[in-house]
Amino acid sequence: MNRIPFSEVQAALAGVLRKLGFAADRADTCARLFAETTRDGVYTHGINRFARFVVTIRNGSVNPLAEPGVTARLGALERWDGHRGPGNLAALAAMERAIVLGREHGVGCVALGNTNHWMRGGTYGWQAAEAGVIGICWTNTMPNLPPWGGAERVIGNNPLIIAVPRASGPVVLDMAMSQFSYGALESYRKRGEMLPVDGGFDASGNLTRDPGAIEESWRPLPAGYWKGSGLAVVLDMIAAMMTLGKATCQISSDPVLETGISQMFLALNPEAFGPAPEADKIADAVVASLDNCPPTKPGGKVRYPGEQTLQIREENARLGLPVEPAVWAEILAM
Amino acid sequence: MNRIPFSEVQAALAGVLRKLGFAADRADTCARLFAETTRDGVYTHGINRFARFVVTIRNGSVNPLAEPGVTARLGALERWDGHRGPGNLAALAAMERAIVLGREHGVGCVALGNTNHWMRGGTYGWQAAEAGVIGICWTNTMPNLPPWGGAERVIGNNPLIIAVPRASGPVVLDMAMSQFSYGALESYRKRGEMLPVDGGFDASGNLTRDPGAIEESWRPLPAGYWKGSGLAVVLDMIAAMMTLGKATCQISSDPVLETGISQMFLALNPEAFGPAPEADKIADAVVASLDNCPPTKPGGKVRYPGEQTLQIREENARLGLPVEPAVWAEILAM
Repeated sequence: MNRIPFSEVQAALAGVLRKLGFAADRADTCARLFAETTRDGVYTHGINRFARFVVTIRNGSVNPLAEPGVTARLGALERWDGHRGPGNLAALAAMERAIVLGREHGVGCVALGNTNHWMRGGTYGWQAAEAGVIGICWTNTMPNLPPWGGAERVIGNNPLIIAVPRASGPVVLDMAMSQFSYGALESYRKRGEMLPVDGGFDASGNLTRDPGAIEESWRPLPAGYWKGSGLAVVLDMIAAMMTLGKATCQISSDPVLETGISQMFLALNPEAFGPAPEADKIADAVVASLDNCPPTKPGGKVRYPGEQTLQIREENARLGLPVEPAVWAEILAM
Repeated sequence: MNRIPFSEVQAALAGVLRKLGFAADRADTCARLFAETTRDGVYTHGINRFARFVVTIRNGSVNPLAEPGVTARLGALERWDGHRGPGNLAALAAMERAIVLGREHGVGCVALGNTNHWMRGGTYGWQAAEAGVIGICWTNTMPNLPPWGGAERVIGNNPLIIAVPRASGPVVLDMAMSQFSYGALESYRKRGEMLPVDGGFDASGNLTRDPGAIEESWRPLPAGYWKGSGLAVVLDMIAAMMTLGKATCQISSDPVLETGISQMFLALNPEAFGPAPEADKIADAVVASLDNCPPTKPGGKVRYPGEQTLQIREENARLGLPVEPAVWAEILAM
């Protein structure tokens, strides 16, 4: 594993994006989001995901020149069209606007349709929390998950992000509706490990912890069985209905043709009614209650969502971003 | 099982509430919500829950005279104080106001603190969907669930409701953050059935489908393990921070002393920018994709959240509400 300085990674990715037609500032921002994702330890959606992103630019799924824009507005709510531009840039702009609306109206919402994969959803949660507001956002996806009781992939794993500002470290939940992503299944298989809990069905329809068997059956489990399945359905409906965009069932199930998806960005301002230092104390009290909970395993610890991020971020920023040599070579050759 | 006409149930419950100090109109509404819950098939939180509700009035946890009121306001957001009145009446009023705010500003939010158990959360989802808006609401609860990796109950099962209006039948998700509620565990045990999937840990710390073993260990599983656990944590934080009210760790873990809880009500208007018949078509398309998904079991069917409610509602409205004779006798004697 190489360790490459953050700025060197960002510059390399930005250089590729400029060759693909991105304006310089948009190339820099898009590259920064990829580099920050790896820096924060979400390796599946950072540098390792860049080559596939480039494929979707080259095949026309992502238009590098397209910028998102507002198409309708009422008070605290706006509808935006992503014009099928780079999904992470559109999502960043949509959350930025939701934050402004949230500051002005207490709660703000941007419904972003006709956009593309936002890569790491947690990015937009951290964005809100670092701006001092609560961020709630989700996206629909191509059909990649069988609903509870169904044998074929007709729902999406529709990641949901909920981020809470806290002075001593934001709390950021970033969860897809499948118990394990396909990326996670691949990682377990490559390490030769079984999953810690059932992750899906094998080809015979039995629950299994064998990651390879689930990759073959294409039948991962929704998180919480019927619960994650139902949550995926309503999140999809809301995103598509508020944008008048596509629902999961109307999106291509080919990963590099997945385009025109629908996303929601909400911001809630805990200081809408004035400074609220009590709010920060409440967040601390909840974290303390987890810290003080006896662990099930000796030496264990109950963690809050996102607890490890700041430590991983610091380490990767200091040592350089971990990049597989083959991945890095591929990027340098682009 | 008796079958009692809806109006007779409502009148009996309202009579008890008036004796306990409720004003006549509030007694009628509170009784209606209990009766509607049983009518809709949520038997754990309807008539069967009424006796425990009465206990919390008699012991002072619930003040029958207290009405909720706004304490702060900014644009689309309001903070309310429930004044520890009847939780279902406060929640109904809070969602009603969120709907008005949502119609005016596109999105509306009421953060309701210092309130009481809202009984069936789905009530407020149906309320929003029947008014033509998307409703999202959640509540925190007393500590009743061990977080993932923890051995003691320090988080709440914090039900989350997401409701989507649809002309041919709203889609209403009503999910607690535990895979099975204590009420569900009791039902399975009384029927002598094992759970369909692992529902918690036994006293030795092994995953089990035995409902009685989980009731004894007090260690039900969060839905989706770490996912439902993390979701419970952030929902609790948001509700407590936005209300400046209590977080789960600050609430009594005695069920009849659980009071002063925190709730969030959000309404999103799919017709904020004008009539949107396309939105209804999108919801129908998602439902059709589930209808058309091959079931895992012959004769099975993939259902959307709340799909069975309208049928159960119609049946119970027609035949009368199913009430256990002992429960009915207890109510008539109050």
